[in-house]
Amino acid sequence: MILVQDQLMDQSELHIGMEDRGYQFGDGIYEVIRIYKGHFFGIEEHLTRLERSAKELQMSLPYSIDLLKQRLIELAEVNSIHDGQVYLQITRGVAERTHHFPDNQKSMLVGYTKEAPRPLQKLRNGISVITTEDIRWLRCDIKSLNLLGNVLSKQKAKDAGCDEAILIREGTVTEGSSSNVFIVKDGVVKTHPANNFILNGITRNVLLHLAHEAGVEVVENTFDQSELMNADEVFISSTTMEITPVVSINDKTVSNGLPGAITQLLQAKFEQQIEKIQAVEN
Amino acid sequence: MILVQDQLMDQSELHIGMEDRGYQFGDGIYEVIRIYKGHFFGIEEHLTRLERSAKELQMSLPYSIDLLKQRLIELAEVNSIHDGQVYLQITRGVAERTHHFPDNQKSMLVGYTKEAPRPLQKLRNGISVITTEDIRWLRCDIKSLNLLGNVLSKQKAKDAGCDEAILIREGTVTEGSSSNVFIVKDGVVKTHPANNFILNGITRNVLLHLAHEAGVEVVENTFDQSELMNADEVFISSTTMEITPVVSINDKTVSNGLPGAITQLLQAKFEQQIEKIQAVEN
Repeated sequence: MILVQDQLMDQSELHIGMEDRGYQFGDGIYEVIRIYKGHFFGIEEHLTRLERSAKELQMSLPYSIDLLKQRLIELAEVNSIHDGQVYLQITRGVAERTHHFPDNQKSMLVGYTKEAPRPLQKLRNGISVITTEDIRWLRCDIKSLNLLGNVLSKQKAKDAGCDEAILIREGTVTEGSSSNVFIVKDGVVKTHPANNFILNGITRNVLLHLAHEAGVEVVENTFDQSELMNADEVFISSTTMEITPVVSINDKTVSNGLPGAITQLLQAKFEQQIEKIQAVEN
Repeated sequence: MILVQDQLMDQSELHIGMEDRGYQFGDGIYEVIRIYKGHFFGIEEHLTRLERSAKELQMSLPYSIDLLKQRLIELAEVNSIHDGQVYLQITRGVAERTHHFPDNQKSMLVGYTKEAPRPLQKLRNGISVITTEDIRWLRCDIKSLNLLGNVLSKQKAKDAGCDEAILIREGTVTEGSSSNVFIVKDGVVKTHPANNFILNGITRNVLLHLAHEAGVEVVENTFDQSELMNADEVFISSTTMEITPVVSINDKTVSNGLPGAITQLLQAKFEQQIEKIQAVEN
């Protein structure tokens, strides 16, 4: 079953119009929410961010956050999702094609689930990444469907046999093509501040909180490519990649090429968070 | 009737998948081609640009340019389009959602027509515009479905009671939210060079050719906001807006607030081009 507007239905019943503004302009927003052993992780935070994205695009959400949450939980349940995720997208809906917003907006909502195992091997061994120019627009803080810059960067990484591309805008490391980026130097964690140049990740915020709790110093400051290349540890965070060590950048190993101590500490704390939500009801 | 892949069919037969990469990533390209009195204007140039956009996104076109041209002509004929346009879109098709390109790409093509009168009053009297920051990505030369930056700018113009937003990137005038921008100073026409910061408009190129033929000097150089505000004449070009005079920018009139002489000369030359294609068979 999938979610269409506020109803669960069979996918065969879905109709997407060719003039859906999501299809013609990428005029829409989305969230990907992780499910661990049948329990949503950070669903409130994701839906709050969805609400913010909508506001920034002057879209009104068609349903309350409470109703959305309820329907997503029903969707995951009816599909018996154990370890997986839900993808939720809302576009500005169908209207005769013209760049400006239509006078009468009727949003289109689609949500669906899939089973997806945790990337355990990558969490343990780390990943290799490349760096590439950040060619995206200046509102990366909005989780919108305008993802071509991310797509092209991720493809570059794949072509290089890597898992992620770290984006550099005018010398500054912003984030990954689908993740936030962190470096550790002399025991201090550094990540790009949450402004218009990056998406403020839900996992990023969990991680900042966990670091604080663990007494690990974190600064939200910009850093450049040379700081990245000379960091003691590098890791990325995202809903699907959780906290993944980066062990190689542009074919150069990070430190000794093994996941660092602070990275592993934060991974352990994150693991506890996952266990915690499994112990309580949604 | 609409065009789906290489077949004309009723719109009710169209099925767009929720995991169409056009719908989830804006991973696709498009063209809007004008039809005057039943005759396509610049169809070869539009399809050549479509081919270029595909190449830049590493998409392969599913059909030859010749076949596409033939089908678009059939589509316009079967729908008896007199004065109107065809919209043609090709996405990277349906695949399980992941940022990088799918291994097996099966493009999705949709084309449809509509009647649309020429904007005669605006062509005659000119339009008012605003300026706003160019927040788009750094590959504006690709005619892609990632149009949120354009959408938000056009909406800003509409909110200000204007027809177009002229975009400024770090002080430099790039183009309009859905048009190219030209200024005239001391008899010389100036427009942003065709690089990654602008879409190289088909009408823009027709216009450069016509200006050359008419002995009007044109330079493809960047210019800043102050040159824009102090120009003798300003106009925009696009497939749907043709050559439209700009008579007011941010509530300040351009010169005496009337369409300028060189603008009108180029409009007259463009009019002759339209008449010319009506005199020959497609």
